[in-house]
Order: sequence, then structure tokens, then C-alpha cells
Amino acid sequence: MHANRRPDKMKLGAFFHPTGHHVAAWMHPGSQIDAGTNFQHYVSLAQTAEAGKFDLMFLADSLSVREAPLDALSRWPQYTAYFEPITLLSGIAANTKHLGLVATASTSYNAPYNVARSYASLDHISGGRAGWNVVTSGGASVAANFDNVSYPHDDRYDRAVEFAEVVRGLWDSWDDDAFVRDRESGRYFDPAKVHTLDHVGVHFSVKGPLNAARPPQGHPVLFQAGGSPPGRELAARLCEAVFTPLHTLDAAQSFYSDVKARMERYGRRPDQLKIMPGLNPVVGRTRQEALDKHQYLQSLIHPDVGLELLSNALGGYDLSGCDPDGPLPDELDSMHTEGGQTQFRNVLGWARNEKLTIRQLYERFAGARGQRTVIGTGEEIADQMQSWFESYGVDGYLIQPPYLPGGLDEFVADVIPVLQDRGLFRTEYEGSTLRENLGLDRPKSRYARSV
Amino acid sequence: MHANRRPDKMKLGAFFHPTGHHVAAWMHPGSQIDAGTNFQHYVSLAQTAEAGKFDLMFLADSLSVREAPLDALSRWPQYTAYFEPITLLSGIAANTKHLGLVATASTSYNAPYNVARSYASLDHISGGRAGWNVVTSGGASVAANFDNVSYPHDDRYDRAVEFAEVVRGLWDSWDDDAFVRDRESGRYFDPAKVHTLDHVGVHFSVKGPLNAARPPQGHPVLFQAGGSPPGRELAARLCEAVFTPLHTLDAAQSFYSDVKARMERYGRRPDQLKIMPGLNPVVGRTRQEALDKHQYLQSLIHPDVGLELLSNALGGYDLSGCDPDGPLPDELDSMHTEGGQTQFRNVLGWARNEKLTIRQLYERFAGARGQRTVIGTGEEIADQMQSWFESYGVDGYLIQPPYLPGGLDEFVADVIPVLQDRGLFRTEYEGSTLRENLGLDRPKSRYARSV
Repeated sequence: MHANRRPDKMKLGAFFHPTGHHVAAWMHPGSQIDAGTNFQHYVSLAQTAEAGKFDLMFLADSLSVREAPLDALSRWPQYTAYFEPITLLSGIAANTKHLGLVATASTSYNAPYNVARSYASLDHISGGRAGWNVVTSGGASVAANFDNVSYPHDDRYDRAVEFAEVVRGLWDSWDDDAFVRDRESGRYFDPAKVHTLDHVGVHFSVKGPLNAARPPQGHPVLFQAGGSPPGRELAARLCEAVFTPLHTLDAAQSFYSDVKARMERYGRRPDQLKIMPGLNPVVGRTRQEALDKHQYLQSLIHPDVGLELLSNALGGYDLSGCDPDGPLPDELDSMHTEGGQTQFRNVLGWARNEKLTIRQLYERFAGARGQRTVIGTGEEIADQMQSWFESYGVDGYLIQPPYLPGGLDEFVADVIPVLQDRGLFRTEYEGSTLRENLGLDRPKSRYARSV
Repeated sequence: MHANRRPDKMKLGAFFHPTGHHVAAWMHPGSQIDAGTNFQHYVSLAQTAEAGKFDLMFLADSLSVREAPLDALSRWPQYTAYFEPITLLSGIAANTKHLGLVATASTSYNAPYNVARSYASLDHISGGRAGWNVVTSGGASVAANFDNVSYPHDDRYDRAVEFAEVVRGLWDSWDDDAFVRDRESGRYFDPAKVHTLDHVGVHFSVKGPLNAARPPQGHPVLFQAGGSPPGRELAARLCEAVFTPLHTLDAAQSFYSDVKARMERYGRRPDQLKIMPGLNPVVGRTRQEALDKHQYLQSLIHPDVGLELLSNALGGYDLSGCDPDGPLPDELDSMHTEGGQTQFRNVLGWARNEKLTIRQLYERFAGARGQRTVIGTGEEIADQMQSWFESYGVDGYLIQPPYLPGGLDEFVADVIPVLQDRGLFRTEYEGSTLRENLGLDRPKSRYARSV
């Protein structure tokens, strides 16, 4: 099934949480403590990532302040107060030249016309470097900020598919060569090269055309996280990169072949979707230094934060009355969650298979937060990355440094050169757009005439 | 009624349509022909405006491609394809230091939580230079892009007031000093300094808190255009700058005192709202050169565009069958329009009072597009600006150069220095935020304790 030639180089994104991915990042002296309001911090991060030849930077998002007991909330800044991703990436576009800029936006609490415009605009501002991480958004705290509108899990994915199709249709409103701008004839555009979408669907009714020229990339690159069956189907149908958490090579290989196989029914080639799960590197000059670094970060976790985090990963299950040195309550095994199902099953799986206590579980989870952690020297981390890549478990990774900017600096200094020396990662950008660097085709307009 | 001390200097904004304000701007050799997709064009404009010490740059917006016969549409690029304002201004923030950045966003086709976030984010990115032009949006072409949702005129304003109140409430979610970021105590913020809005109103239900720190300005500056009674009331209640078209000094003075008088019932001082109508300068080294420039621009107008433009200004009334050298049809006098009422009455007033033909009317309108045009040397234009300012007709102007970048370059070179020499305009920025430069108070949080 891997008859398709695959590029010999992996793809790397830099996934930036404000102070870093580790739950205690802000407590670490190597993190920028006011990251959530410090624009220059992000500019520096982006420039470091670009110096390291990363394909892209990636920003997660949420549409509410994290729901948590106030005490735990006040001890961990994640999803409390930070930049809105599209505005932030538009600012960064002006300070970078090559780095892809991928922002998260919800299909449940935005209008397709507005999303199509914002990403088209970011793509024009950045000269073809925009990406959209499609999320469906769930949860009561979000709904409460939007007139209490909410959708059940499967309906959210159904809406997401239609939403993304509308957005892609709107991006094709103007042919690439529609704007002739001819002062001689007095024509700014060719009237035959503008198209009205006239979409009337189950969830949306959108006429078009979009009031933006076709993006330089044709379509900004579509990212997606979810690993649930409707999430995989959305990815196979529409997306060009997925970053579902994958913890064992077996699981990664199975996910990899499943998603790529699903693409065929949509007439897509496997190389047109990149599997790039999250990876949390803790880099040391020696293995012991890396282990010490990790242990130091773990020691900074406040227990209230640990419990809150674990509770979130378990669909909001209230653990406050539980003995931290006991097991997870039995009733979790039969619980149903809305959203975040992959994560729920992963965490529960660790607890049961490895017989972990609540404390052991939250300590593991607090560092990695549902993703995979690798701890070691640059060589050792590169080994891990290479092994999964060469075994068709992944096409690349979203690197989530534990604290920022320090953790990114270390990765760029100690891991990237090893990957480059092994011929596994670029030393120069291949193209000028995100799509070109990721090795993705530029989509033809749906209105293009076949030759 | 002018007992309140008023600043002795006028305020100036630069209102940028992509190729310029004049309907034939793109046909002029001094305009940047690909302005709608040329980010560097806007960066240069912003930097020129900043060199000229403008308070701000201003971007209008629409949520659909302009509705017009395709032939006319293809001959005038306004509202066909261009940057989305918030992304564009976020990009420009990184390339400027002092210039205020005012973007239009609709209260009819956005959620208050999303608008509050975007402008808070822009305010953080720019270090306190964001402004929000509050528009209600109407028209069938916009509704068609948003599931055919539309609201009657008065309801739109009612929603706008509630929307803006919610947005302002969300901006106060975190006290200015909420983020203590104290590694010693492990507290990122003080739990007593975050507030839940819990808004349940007629049109919106929004819990909060906003997931963004309080903006550097407290609240980004609120702009508003409408001159209709509900528009005036919205301005008096919530806004800090208005730019309703004003064509005679009498009308300006009457509008000025009316709006400022309305502020009292909301407990606001008159100096906390700036009246800054649009002004279209055509600058020449001699009066004759300016007149020739204007005449040249007028000569570039295609008749299809002229008719379309006039029809738009008259609430979409179809003029295609009318004799261009005859008067406007009588039935217009008794027509009722949704939105744009001020403009409708202005245009109809010119036609009747001055007995203009359709052609004369569209030629006048094509240049000014509902705003005031002044033609002359730098000294002459400064005279006009000074006279209205000193007669309490205005607090300043939104300058709309007829073509860009040329028209802005000329204004900065020939008019600004005259205003500065006369002590009517700053030679250095007074502060570092838009609010400080406009002389507006920084709003206290609604949760601030009185001392």
C-alpha cells in the first residue's frame, strides 16, 4: 500500500502554546512569563522556527476561558487569556518570509463566509503561507459564550464537512487570472471569471462570491486533529494534515494506513495528506540532563492543576474527592463523552493497562497532555523521530516544546541539525508557499475547465 | 454649550479604499492597480500616514461582493475583492509604531465574543492602537451570504447597542492588574480579578469571561458612521468618533451640537466623542492644477459605473432606463429606504435644490461618493478645514485621498505642514495609544471599585 513514492524528508510544524506545552511551563525560568500578551515573544519564536526551517507554526484555540476550579485556573495560564490566532499570525506574517502560519478556527461558532475571508486575507498577506486547523468546538463553557447554541458530536462533524466545503467553494469565487486590471479597456476583472457558489445545504446557505481574490495557494492548507471515526473521515475527505495523538508505533501505523486508505474513495492520493502527530521533546546535552530537565518540570506542577488537567482529559469527570494515590473510579470505564474521545480512551487505557494511580497518571499527563513525550539528547530524539517516520507511522511531527522560547531554541540547536545531517529534513525551503513546502498540490478551481 | 475646553488641534484619520476614494481611482496612473491584494501597498500607505502624524488609518468593509450589473462591477473594483480589515491591520501593526488602526466589523453577522477577542488581540499586538468601526450591515446581498438572516433597520441598531455593550463588558473581564504572574506563590493571576459578564439580553446571551487580557487601551476606540436618529443615539451612548457625511457648515454645526447634546443623558462629556466627517482632498500646487486633476479623474468615469453608483446611493433604485440628461424620477421623493438614509436624503436634496441632471449628479457623486470634496492648493484646503473646525462644525476629518498612494503623498506633503504651521495639527504624537492621541479617556473597568 506504500507503492506511492513518499518524500524522503519529514515535515515539521512548531506548535506554540504561549509559555510552552508543559503544564508548569510558566513556572520554568526559561519561559517568557507574559507570553499571552507579548507579541514580540511570538515574533521571536516564529523567527527561530524559520531559522530552523520548520514548515509552519501552529496555534491552537478555544472560544472560552478554560473551565476549571478558580484555584487551579489561576495556577495554569493555558486557555485563560492570550492572542486570537488569526490576528496574531497576520502580525507574524509581516515578520517572516517562509514559515507557514496555521490558525485554528471553529466551524460551530463562525460563519463560513467570515472564515473564508479571514484565511484568504492571511494567505494574501503572507504570500501563500496560511493554513486552517478545522475544529468543531464543544462544551458548555463555549456554548455559554454564544447564545447557548451547541450541537451533538456527530452533528458537529456533519456541519464541519459542509462548512469546509462552503469555504473551499468560496475560495474559488474568482479564477486565478480573473483580475486583468486593464486601464486600456477599463476592465478591472473579466466578468466571465467570477463565480457564484449558490450553496444551499443542510446547515448553511451561502450565495457568494467571496469578496477576496483566490488565495495564492488556491486554498489555504486544511489541518485537522480528531481521531474519532467522523474525524478520520473529515480528514480523508478534505484535510491535508492531521495531528491526532499517537502513542505507540503500532497505533501510529494503524492510524496512518486507515486514514490514507479512506482517501481513495474521495479520489485523493495518499501523499496529499500528511500525518503529523504532536511530539514533546525534552532535549539535553546528555540523556541524564534531559531526564533531570523533565523531572524539574514535573516538580513544578501544582497538585490542583494536575487533578484539573486529568479531569479535563476525562471529559470533565470530577476527581476532586478522589484519593490521589488510588486508581481512577470504576464508573469511568462505562462513561460516554462528547468530543475528545480519542484522548479519553488513551488516558483510561494507560490507567488500566499500567495500573497507574491518579497521581502517576496526572504526572504523566501533565507533561505530555495527551501527546507523546520523547526525552533525550538530540541524537536520541532524532532516532525516535526517524524510526516512526521510516516505518510509515508518520509523515512528520508537530513539535510542542515544553517551555518557550528555551525549549524551541534547544530543539533547533540540537535536534534539527541531526535530522538534516541524516538527510531527513530540509536545509533550505523548497518553495515559497506552505503548500509547496509540505509537498501538497495546488488545488484547481472547481470552475476550471478540463483541458 | 461649548464651555467645555476643546483641544486646539484637530484630529485626522486616513480612510483608505484600496486604489483610492474616487470611483475612477484605479484608472489613474498614480494609483496602485493591484491594491486589493498588495500588502506592501498598505504598509507603505500606513507608514506615509504615520510620517504625516495622522491619528489613525481607517478601513471600511462589506460582507459581500458589491451588488451591481456585472458590466459596471467589472469596471470599478470597490468592494469586489480585497483584504479583510482585521487581518490587514494586524499585519500593519507590526510595521508601524504610532498609527491608530481602525477596522470595520458588523454587529449583524458576527458574534460579540469573537469581535471582542479580535479587537482585544489587535490592541495587544499594536500596543494600544486598535479601533472598531461599528456597522450594522444591511442588504440582500449580504444576507444571502449568511443563511439569509437579516434584520429591519431599527432592530439592527437595537442589536448593535446590545452587541457593543456586551463587547465592552467582555473587555473588562480581567482587571488591568489581574495577571500577577508570580512564580513564588505559583499564581498566574489573582482569582479575585477575573469577572464573569453573565449577559442575558434581548438579542444575545454571553457568559464570559473573555479569554484575552484587558486591552492596553481598556477598550479599543469605538467609531460609528450613521447619521440617522438611531445612529446618532448609538454614537452618543457608546461611540468615541463619528464620521457621518456633512456637506454644509450649517449642517455640520447642527449635527455637532445635536450629537454632543445627546451625550449628556449617558453621563458623557462632549469632548469624549470626536466628530470627524469624511473629506476628499484634491490637492494641486495651484488652484488650476487641482481643478485639472479633479477634471481628469472625472473624465475617467465610465457611464455604467456612474449610473450604478448613483443607483446605490439611492437605495438600489434602478436608473438603467432613465435619460442621463434628464432629472431623477419623481417617485424617488416618496421612497423609503432601509439603511443609508442620510446619504439618500443628501443626494436627493442636491438633485432637487440644484436641479441637477442624472449625469451631473453622478459626476458629482462619483468623485465624492457622499462625502465632501475640497479642491485647491494646500493653503486653500487647510483654510476649509480650519474654518469648519474653528466654527465647531467638526473636531477633525477622515481624509479620503482620491487615488492611492499619490493622493496621500500630496496631502502629507502639501496640506499637513500648513495645518502644523498654523498650530492646528500635531508635529509629534502626544501619546503611545490611539486613545491618548485622540484625547480620549481610558475607560475604567465596570468592575473597578470607586475610591
